[in-house]
Amino acid sequence: MGKKILLYGGKKAEYLVNFEPGKKIQTHLGVLTLPEDLQYGKRLETHIGKSFYILFPTTRELSMRVKRTTTIIYPKDAGYMLIETGIGAGSKVLETGTGSGALTIILATIVGKEGRVYSFERREEFFNNAIKNVKDTGLDDRVEFHLRDPATDGFNIEPVDAAFIDVPEPWTLVRPVYEVLKPGHAWVSLSPTIEQVQKTHDALKESGFIRLKCVEILEREMLIRHGKTRPKERMVSHTGYLTFAWKVEG
Amino acid sequence: MGKKILLYGGKKAEYLVNFEPGKKIQTHLGVLTLPEDLQYGKRLETHIGKSFYILFPTTRELSMRVKRTTTIIYPKDAGYMLIETGIGAGSKVLETGTGSGALTIILATIVGKEGRVYSFERREEFFNNAIKNVKDTGLDDRVEFHLRDPATDGFNIEPVDAAFIDVPEPWTLVRPVYEVLKPGHAWVSLSPTIEQVQKTHDALKESGFIRLKCVEILEREMLIRHGKTRPKERMVSHTGYLTFAWKVEG
Amino acid sequence: MGKKILLYGGKKAEYLVNFEPGKKIQTHLGVLTLPEDLQYGKRLETHIGKSFYILFPTTRELSMRVKRTTTIIYPKDAGYMLIETGIGAGSKVLETGTGSGALTIILATIVGKEGRVYSFERREEFFNNAIKNVKDTGLDDRVEFHLRDPATDGFNIEPVDAAFIDVPEPWTLVRPVYEVLKPGHAWVSLSPTIEQVQKTHDALKESGFIRLKCVEILEREMLIRHGKTRPKERMVSHTGYLTFAWKVEG
Amino acid sequence: MGKKILLYGGKKAEYLVNFEPGKKIQTHLGVLTLPEDLQYGKRLETHIGKSFYILFPTTRELSMRVKRTTTIIYPKDAGYMLIETGIGAGSKVLETGTGSGALTIILATIVGKEGRVYSFERREEFFNNAIKNVKDTGLDDRVEFHLRDPATDGFNIEPVDAAFIDVPEPWTLVRPVYEVLKPGHAWVSLSPTIEQVQKTHDALKESGFIRLKCVEILEREMLIRHGKTRPKERMVSHTGYLTFAWKVEG
Repeated sequence: MGKKILLYGGKKAEYLVNFEPGKKIQTHLGVLTLPEDLQYGKRLETHIGKSFYILFPTTRELSMRVKRTTTIIYPKDAGYMLIETGIGAGSKVLETGTGSGALTIILATIVGKEGRVYSFERREEFFNNAIKNVKDTGLDDRVEFHLRDPATDGFNIEPVDAAFIDVPEPWTLVRPVYEVLKPGHAWVSLSPTIEQVQKTHDALKESGFIRLKCVEILEREMLIRHGKTRPKERMVSHTGYLTFAWKVEG
Repeated sequence: MGKKILLYGGKKAEYLVNFEPGKKIQTHLGVLTLPEDLQYGKRLETHIGKSFYILFPTTRELSMRVKRTTTIIYPKDAGYMLIETGIGAGSKVLETGTGSGALTIILATIVGKEGRVYSFERREEFFNNAIKNVKDTGLDDRVEFHLRDPATDGFNIEPVDAAFIDVPEPWTLVRPVYEVLKPGHAWVSLSPTIEQVQKTHDALKESGFIRLKCVEILEREMLIRHGKTRPKERMVSHTGYLTFAWKVEG
Repeated sequence: MGKKILLYGGKKAEYLVNFEPGKKIQTHLGVLTLPEDLQYGKRLETHIGKSFYILFPTTRELSMRVKRTTTIIYPKDAGYMLIETGIGAGSKVLETGTGSGALTIILATIVGKEGRVYSFERREEFFNNAIKNVKDTGLDDRVEFHLRDPATDGFNIEPVDAAFIDVPEPWTLVRPVYEVLKPGHAWVSLSPTIEQVQKTHDALKESGFIRLKCVEILEREMLIRHGKTRPKERMVSHTGYLTFAWKVEG
Repeated sequence: MGKKILLYGGKKAEYLVNFEPGKKIQTHLGVLTLPEDLQYGKRLETHIGKSFYILFPTTRELSMRVKRTTTIIYPKDAGYMLIETGIGAGSKVLETGTGSGALTIILATIVGKEGRVYSFERREEFFNNAIKNVKDTGLDDRVEFHLRDPATDGFNIEPVDAAFIDVPEPWTLVRPVYEVLKPGHAWVSLSPTIEQVQKTHDALKESGFIRLKCVEILEREMLIRHGKTRPKERMVSHTGYLTFAWKVEG
């Protein structure tokens, strides 16, 4: 498998592709021919003379540009979840549902080869697409994919350092997660609606979780131009609410 | 050195302490006696019968509760920086200034033992306090501290995967950072004011950086209470602007 | 009754007082002696030489600086309500509850002498305080105060152009308001919690109101200082949700 | 001239039209025939049986649905300006530039027949379009339109209670406005960029204005649906910054 590179030819000309020596890439600014050796930062030219640069694809690009079968998590939300749950290199984490694998890629980047991501998905078509997406990034060596509904079948894995929940009914997973989450460690779920948050909140409080907290993260872009500096005129105003809780002894 | 634990006795009763068997901890809800063995999730009682729980201290706690000699980075900003720069387990990163060490702790958690954080600070009193703060978390094995002003003396380190800049004059570091940042990789700086962003932006564009982007991240807490769900009435409205850029060949 | 003036001696030195020729005003920057004739824009000096200016007190000052017995409406919310309900000079409007009279003052300013504000309050201590607050502004000639609970006793007034509802249980007023609101005209209610909004929403839909809309208005201050331009660090993040609806034939 | 009515057939079926008895209105949900008598709140049916209601067109509709030759002011901003400048029924106000007349319509609604709006525009095509837009609302009896550039030619009107400035270079108007604004009264300007705000700020401070304040107003819509309550996913993130200042004696 080739390595992913980000070809950057301007704000509206970004392409995430697998690097292969000499490969032709069709862009809307002309055809690019990749060099023989991968060299980040290098300038290329399309056949009509437009400049592109080879950039290291960051976690944002790897996760946001997956083939989508579901809505995916935004970097603003994922980044906050990492700090708040405290995971890092070497952590063992649980994720459900896998969805399109966007969060899986983020978690796999963070936990590294010494860590482990246990990722659960119950819908086969999502499962297969997500595995493909993660394999494409070369990060699948640290991910264990499970095609299973943990709400009914449980997780059956080693104790984990954090649980990342992105399903429509997070409250159905509170008890199964309690079983596999290490004591004193964090749950986080992402839900678009208030009612989901309320039900999840109730379930967590009834099931041995404390220190509940719910936040929204907003991202606002600033346009920095000489004499014309201002916020961008439109923004994504809502993706979801993040609910955090810590497991304690019963 | 003991291990850090978070003692949680309610929203306004959180204590981050070093675990030592049998140690007495004075809280405003009474005196706690730590158990002989560290067991996360365990419930303790103060001498006046108030409950506390031993929680795993997450990156938020470890970074936000350092002894502060400077303003420190917020989780909402740090988390976003991680995803956008693409670092993870095993990354080599550059940070300047060290400040109180809050971001150093976050980066050290993320890069892990296989990674490396090169942290530069030019003011000796900040430098010493930050080293103490990072040592307290036990994450100092992967951090190299330098007491130096890189704007004048350069970095003189191996090429890094990302540069995290939190100084009052980021534009003075654009050229030194260009020297040590791997091509195709990311710069991020945090600045509270518009004018800092504008000067940094100009310096980046003139010095071989492309794909500039500036964002603000806002965190809004929701209060989830039966029949009284609403956003919290006050919030931190501004910490700083994040400026990202990617180094390419000249 | 004297006329209200705003004495401005700096950001933290604002006094809203009744003008009386030669009156002494005690400020934390010294004693001011008001001139014989009221002259807006005029500079005065305290006995220790600090400058103050006589400003025309705007609707914000008149409404925000009432003696408060309740939480009061913010200008950001009130201003939006005016445009969205379409009231102006000459309008007849209904308000309940009167609370501290802050919104009453705003509405009285807008509808003018040709208009009318019917203001209802059921708690006598609030009622008396609000009347005093409105009288202090000299705008009471266009306001009719009623000490009554319209949820049980109805309104019994002429048809109105708009209804402004600021009570804990707006849904109890949907039917009484339907009786007195002109067809095709607007209801607006302000509620801090989601649950209040949901119940109000349901009641409106069941009772002949259409075109429901719910918004939040946020106000963010910018600090404009040479070389240090940035948003203020803290803000009021939530006052309430505004719910709008239009009455149509059954 | 007919009276304006708002025909409402659902979220994406709103038509602002002049009422004429028996008039046929083409909508994307079929043809409506207006009744002989104007009756707000009345239900109509298109020739294919779709329901529409006749609503009283509020200031939002009258101002937002003008024929646009320029960007227009948003209700969130205009409403805030009204409260902060303190105008109401009977006020004399100055506006420049007229633009498409959206703010003119708002001001005319507020000041009423006893008040006066002096509106200045220097570009003839905007001037003519705006006059037509305001006439269409029937509010032109209280508006005086001037085709002139006040930055060079001054205002030459009676003293006004407030000045509303919406031009690309507000700083060029600070001195002319100082001449006609009543002492102690308010200036407000709307500008999309930081640099405009900074230059205006400097000019105001140098020219006898005090109590400067700059804010942004944000509007966020909430979707209230059973079991699916949440903020709308996208929003207008920026229209402009509002700068307020008060004139005092030199």
